[in-house]
Amino acid sequence: MSWGVDNLPYGVFSRPGQSPRVGVRYGDRVLDLAPALHDEVFDAPSLNPFMARGRTAWHDTRTLIRNKLTGDLAVTERHLVPLEQVRLHMPFEVADYVDFYCSIDHASNIGQIFRPGTEPLQPNWRHLPVGYHGRSGTVVVSGTPVRRPHGQLGRGAFGPCAKLDIEAELGFVVGVPTELGSPAGAFEDHVFGVTLVNDWSARDIQAWEYVPLGPFLAKSFATSISLWITPLEALPRVPGPAQDPAPADYLRRRGDWGLDISLEVLLNGEVVSRPPYASMYWTPDQMLAHMTVNGASLRTGDLFASGTISGPSRGERGSLIELTWNGTDPLKLASGETRSFLEDGDTVTIRATAGALTLGEVSGTVV
Amino acid sequence: MSWGVDNLPYGVFSRPGQSPRVGVRYGDRVLDLAPALHDEVFDAPSLNPFMARGRTAWHDTRTLIRNKLTGDLAVTERHLVPLEQVRLHMPFEVADYVDFYCSIDHASNIGQIFRPGTEPLQPNWRHLPVGYHGRSGTVVVSGTPVRRPHGQLGRGAFGPCAKLDIEAELGFVVGVPTELGSPAGAFEDHVFGVTLVNDWSARDIQAWEYVPLGPFLAKSFATSISLWITPLEALPRVPGPAQDPAPADYLRRRGDWGLDISLEVLLNGEVVSRPPYASMYWTPDQMLAHMTVNGASLRTGDLFASGTISGPSRGERGSLIELTWNGTDPLKLASGETRSFLEDGDTVTIRATAGALTLGEVSGTVV
Repeated sequence: MSWGVDNLPYGVFSRPGQSPRVGVRYGDRVLDLAPALHDEVFDAPSLNPFMARGRTAWHDTRTLIRNKLTGDLAVTERHLVPLEQVRLHMPFEVADYVDFYCSIDHASNIGQIFRPGTEPLQPNWRHLPVGYHGRSGTVVVSGTPVRRPHGQLGRGAFGPCAKLDIEAELGFVVGVPTELGSPAGAFEDHVFGVTLVNDWSARDIQAWEYVPLGPFLAKSFATSISLWITPLEALPRVPGPAQDPAPADYLRRRGDWGLDISLEVLLNGEVVSRPPYASMYWTPDQMLAHMTVNGASLRTGDLFASGTISGPSRGERGSLIELTWNGTDPLKLASGETRSFLEDGDTVTIRATAGALTLGEVSGTVV
Repeated sequence: MSWGVDNLPYGVFSRPGQSPRVGVRYGDRVLDLAPALHDEVFDAPSLNPFMARGRTAWHDTRTLIRNKLTGDLAVTERHLVPLEQVRLHMPFEVADYVDFYCSIDHASNIGQIFRPGTEPLQPNWRHLPVGYHGRSGTVVVSGTPVRRPHGQLGRGAFGPCAKLDIEAELGFVVGVPTELGSPAGAFEDHVFGVTLVNDWSARDIQAWEYVPLGPFLAKSFATSISLWITPLEALPRVPGPAQDPAPADYLRRRGDWGLDISLEVLLNGEVVSRPPYASMYWTPDQMLAHMTVNGASLRTGDLFASGTISGPSRGERGSLIELTWNGTDPLKLASGETRSFLEDGDTVTIRATAGALTLGEVSGTVV
């Protein structure tokens, strides 16, 4: 089954009248970890205390859970709660949120759309994973309605965003912090797991505000993440793509951190894009090395996302601005409707798989 | 005295062997609030729980403290601890950190330096307070050493930053949160107080990385704030400057939130600049209105800063890149030395006053 013992993602759930606590998804049930493992670290409303324990604890806990689920299930059975009996919550407390820009196809497309007639990739793009800080206080969990933002849409123009968009991304969740002044060590020593991210974007607000200090209100109204955090250990890894020029020494890859994850973007239930994570230029270990090379410290709960995942072909683009080329070539939906950007009531769901493994989904409806 | 009953800023202190708790500075002593006011909200290692209580509580507490200090001091005396007996700590937990760009003189100077031969102010600058998110996990308290960051300084160039700079700013600390989707209400209902900010900046890293998503590693290695948070209520207010064009309705001023604060920037003890806060174009109530107009929520502990404070004359510029015009016109110090940017061992202190009121200082040494 797709939520079997090779998956075992972590989330936070509650039963009626009980406070939220940490669980692991197994099939259509949640394993209530605090009593099942006799460990109070899971009797908490977020994954942060457990994530702070580090790689050995993550591995040992995973082994313990697998043993429980493959051993005498009669003993474990009473700690498995059907999903329909629980409410699911934000799985971790976000410390800092950084968003990168790691897809060469996305960066090229956006460059052509925002700065037509110029070289689409900026001079720095192949030398470093471009990134910026987002608003961590407005990272919300899948299912949270997304309110269309108001803002300045250009000189003298104010109103509701008319170019509301999505960005299909993968996010990486930090467990083990670092001291200020010391770059991070090995990727797998710090990063606990991954989540799907929808970085909702107001393109008209963005185009007017983003020079020279980057996107601000165009992104800060909501960023959605999935309910279940997939442990890094569960993910199959592949070599990253070729890079030209060779990256600076601190960005040199010290392991295979390419990820062969297939995403699907659904608009009102219809698949409109299939972004391939394997096409990303910068790998997640390079993002982490870059983010901390200046001595910036990590905290438990830091989230860094890949930026929009877009492949080379049209059907692989991870945002509407690319799929419809800034609205000039609207999507034709099976219903007969067309879409340039999101309309009120639209539901966007991003789901992903890595081979037989599901990463679940992140979903939100525009209100 | 400059730390008298008209000031009474809040901080976090500890005595040897005791855990950090909230106090108020009075002269050269700290009033230990938890026992003095019989209120456990102050028996916490940060101001956040008290700041969350809101405006009426802030006002009533201030009144209570003033009464204690102007009444029978013999009773209060035992809760006043000499500063030399305490250690001072980070005064609050930073939720999100936003940095604005509100000085028209600073934005004009930077535009001329980074983009010579073009119009220095971007088309959006007079229409909205430009801002971006910084890294909240690396906001540190005055006195914390600042390690010179390493990073990419240009194409194929990696090493220690050669253009390490400061930015003299004023920061605003949010006490009362908002719900996602609802713009903030009145400024004084949300903002608890102010702090001095030094937004350390690596100009060579910044110039290479900042297009198109804004500053990232050039700023994220450290941002220093002062030890004492001055309550908003203590600050004298003046009308803001004239604005042309008239701002959008949501940015229309609903009170006088100009602040007549005089800053001084000291390099190794010598005053090198006197930035006047009164010259800022965008006022703090406009920053707050802008930051939340898209429905982005506030959290207790959010920090938003003004951006570099620079006045129109050379001696009023709040960063070295402006004072030395990107190193082309070095500062001549009284010691006979010159400075284009910071050298190892340099100490920068920013201090400020508002009339008879001191806002203390923020200080850091480059290591």
